[in-house]
Amino acid sequence: MRPNRPERVTSPDPTDVHPAWLPPAAFRAVGSRHVLVYGDGPLVDTVLREARLACAAYGGTARRCADGPAAQLVLALRGTPGIAAVVRTDPAATGGLGDEGYAVTRRDEVTVVLADEPAGLLHGLFHVVRLGESAFGAPHPARAYRPVMRRRMLDHWDNVDVHPVMGQVERGYSGGSIFWRDGRAHPDRARVRAYARLLAACGVNAVSVNNVNVHATEARLLTDRLDDVAEIADDLRPYGVRVHLSVNFAAPVMVGGLPTADPLDEKVRPWWAETTARVYARIPDFGGYLVKADSEGQPGPFSYGRDHADGANLLAEALAPYGGVVHWRAFVYDHRQDWRDRSTDRARAAHDHFTPLDGRFRDNVVVQVKHGPLDFQTREPVSPVIAAMPGTRLAVEFQVMQEYTGQQRHVCYLAPWWHEVLRFTPWGDGGPTVADVAADGGGLAAVSNVGDDPFWTGHPLAQANLYAYGRLAWDPRLRPEDVLDEWIDLTFDPAASADPDLLRRTLHEIMDDSWRTYERYTAPLGVGFMVRPGHHYGPDVDGYEYTPWGTYHFADRDGVGVDRTRATGTGFTGQYPPPWSRVYESPERCPDELLLFFHHVRYDHVLHSGSTVVQHIYDTHFAGVAQVTAMSDRWATLAGLVDPAVHARVSERLAEQRRSAQEWCDQVNAYFHRKSGVPDAYGRSLY
Amino acid sequence: MRPNRPERVTSPDPTDVHPAWLPPAAFRAVGSRHVLVYGDGPLVDTVLREARLACAAYGGTARRCADGPAAQLVLALRGTPGIAAVVRTDPAATGGLGDEGYAVTRRDEVTVVLADEPAGLLHGLFHVVRLGESAFGAPHPARAYRPVMRRRMLDHWDNVDVHPVMGQVERGYSGGSIFWRDGRAHPDRARVRAYARLLAACGVNAVSVNNVNVHATEARLLTDRLDDVAEIADDLRPYGVRVHLSVNFAAPVMVGGLPTADPLDEKVRPWWAETTARVYARIPDFGGYLVKADSEGQPGPFSYGRDHADGANLLAEALAPYGGVVHWRAFVYDHRQDWRDRSTDRARAAHDHFTPLDGRFRDNVVVQVKHGPLDFQTREPVSPVIAAMPGTRLAVEFQVMQEYTGQQRHVCYLAPWWHEVLRFTPWGDGGPTVADVAADGGGLAAVSNVGDDPFWTGHPLAQANLYAYGRLAWDPRLRPEDVLDEWIDLTFDPAASADPDLLRRTLHEIMDDSWRTYERYTAPLGVGFMVRPGHHYGPDVDGYEYTPWGTYHFADRDGVGVDRTRATGTGFTGQYPPPWSRVYESPERCPDELLLFFHHVRYDHVLHSGSTVVQHIYDTHFAGVAQVTAMSDRWATLAGLVDPAVHARVSERLAEQRRSAQEWCDQVNAYFHRKSGVPDAYGRSLY
Repeated sequence: MRPNRPERVTSPDPTDVHPAWLPPAAFRAVGSRHVLVYGDGPLVDTVLREARLACAAYGGTARRCADGPAAQLVLALRGTPGIAAVVRTDPAATGGLGDEGYAVTRRDEVTVVLADEPAGLLHGLFHVVRLGESAFGAPHPARAYRPVMRRRMLDHWDNVDVHPVMGQVERGYSGGSIFWRDGRAHPDRARVRAYARLLAACGVNAVSVNNVNVHATEARLLTDRLDDVAEIADDLRPYGVRVHLSVNFAAPVMVGGLPTADPLDEKVRPWWAETTARVYARIPDFGGYLVKADSEGQPGPFSYGRDHADGANLLAEALAPYGGVVHWRAFVYDHRQDWRDRSTDRARAAHDHFTPLDGRFRDNVVVQVKHGPLDFQTREPVSPVIAAMPGTRLAVEFQVMQEYTGQQRHVCYLAPWWHEVLRFTPWGDGGPTVADVAADGGGLAAVSNVGDDPFWTGHPLAQANLYAYGRLAWDPRLRPEDVLDEWIDLTFDPAASADPDLLRRTLHEIMDDSWRTYERYTAPLGVGFMVRPGHHYGPDVDGYEYTPWGTYHFADRDGVGVDRTRATGTGFTGQYPPPWSRVYESPERCPDELLLFFHHVRYDHVLHSGSTVVQHIYDTHFAGVAQVTAMSDRWATLAGLVDPAVHARVSERLAEQRRSAQEWCDQVNAYFHRKSGVPDAYGRSLY
Repeated sequence: MRPNRPERVTSPDPTDVHPAWLPPAAFRAVGSRHVLVYGDGPLVDTVLREARLACAAYGGTARRCADGPAAQLVLALRGTPGIAAVVRTDPAATGGLGDEGYAVTRRDEVTVVLADEPAGLLHGLFHVVRLGESAFGAPHPARAYRPVMRRRMLDHWDNVDVHPVMGQVERGYSGGSIFWRDGRAHPDRARVRAYARLLAACGVNAVSVNNVNVHATEARLLTDRLDDVAEIADDLRPYGVRVHLSVNFAAPVMVGGLPTADPLDEKVRPWWAETTARVYARIPDFGGYLVKADSEGQPGPFSYGRDHADGANLLAEALAPYGGVVHWRAFVYDHRQDWRDRSTDRARAAHDHFTPLDGRFRDNVVVQVKHGPLDFQTREPVSPVIAAMPGTRLAVEFQVMQEYTGQQRHVCYLAPWWHEVLRFTPWGDGGPTVADVAADGGGLAAVSNVGDDPFWTGHPLAQANLYAYGRLAWDPRLRPEDVLDEWIDLTFDPAASADPDLLRRTLHEIMDDSWRTYERYTAPLGVGFMVRPGHHYGPDVDGYEYTPWGTYHFADRDGVGVDRTRATGTGFTGQYPPPWSRVYESPERCPDELLLFFHHVRYDHVLHSGSTVVQHIYDTHFAGVAQVTAMSDRWATLAGLVDPAVHARVSERLAEQRRSAQEWCDQVNAYFHRKSGVPDAYGRSLY
């Protein structure tokens, strides 16, 4: 694998991997200027190192001004070298930039980035990188940028020891872990540093370095294997990224030698306090713990007759003196459900478990809620928990990893999906958005899609999801299509290509609607799942229908869908505040794309679109396949315009996506045709 | 695990495992007599050792008569010690006993076993053991016993190296391999010898010691790892059991360093000749090779544009000088079939591939045909290949291992099923049976259900299948219910129990009809599969419906089943000679139990039983569950009458069988109810 970089440039991290959205060319505009860096400390050193590297490649200069103003600055100049302007932060103009914020101004041919703290300067540098030449255009007064979410976290489901079933990265589709290999911290430290740099450039500032399912070896990261974690923290710190650790709730028993992990036990609390003190002695900027408790077989407070507040507060108390937080996942449900019992509804579970505890969590507990009530499906409603815990700090959890959205073999740009969720208004029009709730609470978290694959993410175009997650976490108001273009410009350097417009436009066309395309050829109308059990790839309409997992579609010869109404179903709609409790309750008002999530309807039920349910299924599935074919044809036109290695990898994956989409289409259509007996209105083949 | 044996007896093989059908008590009748053994050689030594061990336990005597008649004898006497009779084989009376046959006579209070060869004497000894006291009753003239099948083989699907997906024993449900551990021949040689003894006592005389899917390490058993095979052969030989080896058709490339394995290549033939010569130099009584070629990804002659006759004859030529045979499996089909294409029929594949080659195989090739056209389902028709290759030596293959029949977690006594197959007359009433074809050809082969489990077979009652396989291979005319009683008497020693009748009757009731019970609660009317893909345990009605495996049921809202007729279907019925080609072609004449194998019918189709198809499905599934409950209740009454360890293990498995049967019942019934919309005539719960 030869990444697409000019020979004369030395990467700051000499890993032999694809540069993602930070190829040397991304620094062309900055690197051809004269850059002054004011301030000191490790993050300012990072800014200076980045500037120097860019300038070495593109003919500019970069130096530190040790005796400059106290406020840190980056000055980027065109023309005469030397200081052209010194600008102080004006709190009146910028309103205070905070830990990570920055302001950018341009006057007298000089672009200035200001920040209150070194981390802000680093984010400002990458802001200028994103702008490229346009950062050096018309003068403008200071514009301030602050992250909307304080914590923008990525969770790695990486195992230290390769798990016999789940492999090294649970649900990983990008090779092995970049953090762990052969049971130890990965020897390729440069790769970890390169990752930190990519994260800083998109806005991520926290990483949990091990799987939420914490097995025996991984439990010891908290204690005698802490040095391994510290090593990773050392590599992430220069880019302003803090380390978090997934811990096993039973750690006091597993690694502490105590007879119990009961959160109210008199020996358990000091054990966590002392253990946590040792963590901070070794890693002073340690972020905190991430816990999956009483979920899918993981231990938790239920074993001791305690509740999730007792459990979370136990760890929070230990972390509080150091400013650490505990992320406590709300993904708790009965995974041994009886499929015969239609009154039990897994969608209800997080709300049922957690909302009664609202107000009981310590302030440094973040209850981490999956964005939907089920499990990262291609389409779900927003979780009702998000509107139901005003007295609790909530983080919203996404999955950048494409477990249910094509496993990085399918192009599926997820930012439009996340954007829909983030701008959703749980209390109706004009009320706060999901993003507002997260911003007031614990921010965003997401499962990373990165592994030791040379392209980082298996599918090179899946890099866009990682990038967009960071950008939306920084500012959820960004439009996903703009973020996509930003990513395309950084990653593919269209300006240097033979046909910049074709390259930009084609990539945009391939990716922008790809999530909806994926939705079209997979499970219809919000019904979810229909994937092969276990690995979750490819279609199996009845695969989960008669299992204990609580994920059913109840298709019979007359109709399909899950009745979650208060009137006749599981009552799940009642977990929403108005207006959604009313909208979702009504099959007439419920949005088409969620109809089968909330209602069991007849195949001849007419959608808002005017189509019947069964004809909609046929139509969207045929359309989805056609769109993948078009996607594939478009990609073929880019041969010669993108790195051949990238082109080859994407072509190979598109072929698989085409095959898989056809399989989804034919199986889903055959299934509903065999059940309903309704022929396709257009006479297309149903098997 | 403490086997159920008197303390004073020392086992001939001090392995700490269950004695199966050879507990010391099985030798009570023989061991309380005075026994004389005439003849010499290793197998006669074995007879003497067995007699001595029995006599040591039960007060008899056993000695060798070195200067007796040339014909080998066993004399079992009651009363005065010493020789009471010497009886020579009378060829006029016995017709020549052959390699393994024997004759038994009783006169003057003396029971005499005669044989032409030592192996016959060994089989005669175990005959007397089976008879117990009744061997010593009324006088009778010589009765001759000869095996109907010359070769009665067990195939072990054991891997030397643990396979990452399939484990050590592919489709093994009894722990690890008894032959291999940690990549070498298993150090517990006593276990292998104990196995050989059990095999000899039921009639098996050949064992293939490694998986037919021959991976890298296992391919080397043929060459530099041959010593490991020789070691096993040494342990099996004293009981008259010969070793066979599964080989990889690509061995000349994999282990021989040749550029090709083309059967017509001028270097490949000498390679096999030389390699085989080395095998016989090391193991003079080596049985031969077993080959799975061009099947499910295994290499074969197709790669070189050759056919199965070319491939099989290549190996046969190498084996011929030593009397060895090649077993060439006819299990060849397209496992990448398009489920949309209803004209392709996996059931046709073996016949399509092999019958054109009839007459082209060398005499020491045995084409090994699975008994049904698919894959060891609970119910299938007999394979049409069996009637279609008069110029070829055929062996019929069974699966003692319960891959599709409950995986040794369910009680499923398979002998009635095998018996049905063996007595089936492919050319109609009065014609030869399947057993006749096998007897004239290559005999029987079966996949073993044995592993290093303390009970040998996981489920203690699954031992009966291994026993019955050997007995039916020796004599397919035996009635399975009699073989069951024979096994019960040997294994459980009812005579010594507090309630012999209850023990005998209850075990018989639990097991005798258990195969049909299993059929009732699983896939209906011969349609097959409906198991969870991959591991094949438990129900998943649509699990294989949209896969490339060629195993479909085509259920829709109107009906179910596979149209394999000549008139409108795949034409598979045309592979049978009359009368079956006509019987199977007609939905009216086709036996109910195979209806959905051959026909796609409406749910309201009326069976010979008078029931509709869908009501039959409901009825049999509810009945199957009720029968498992009854089975379980019956077993509970045996507490105190059988070894507590056996009772506990069987109780635990019956609980799982009850759970699983209920799951099968509810899923299959729900599936057909949802599809057909037909309610149960008796108003029972359908989900």
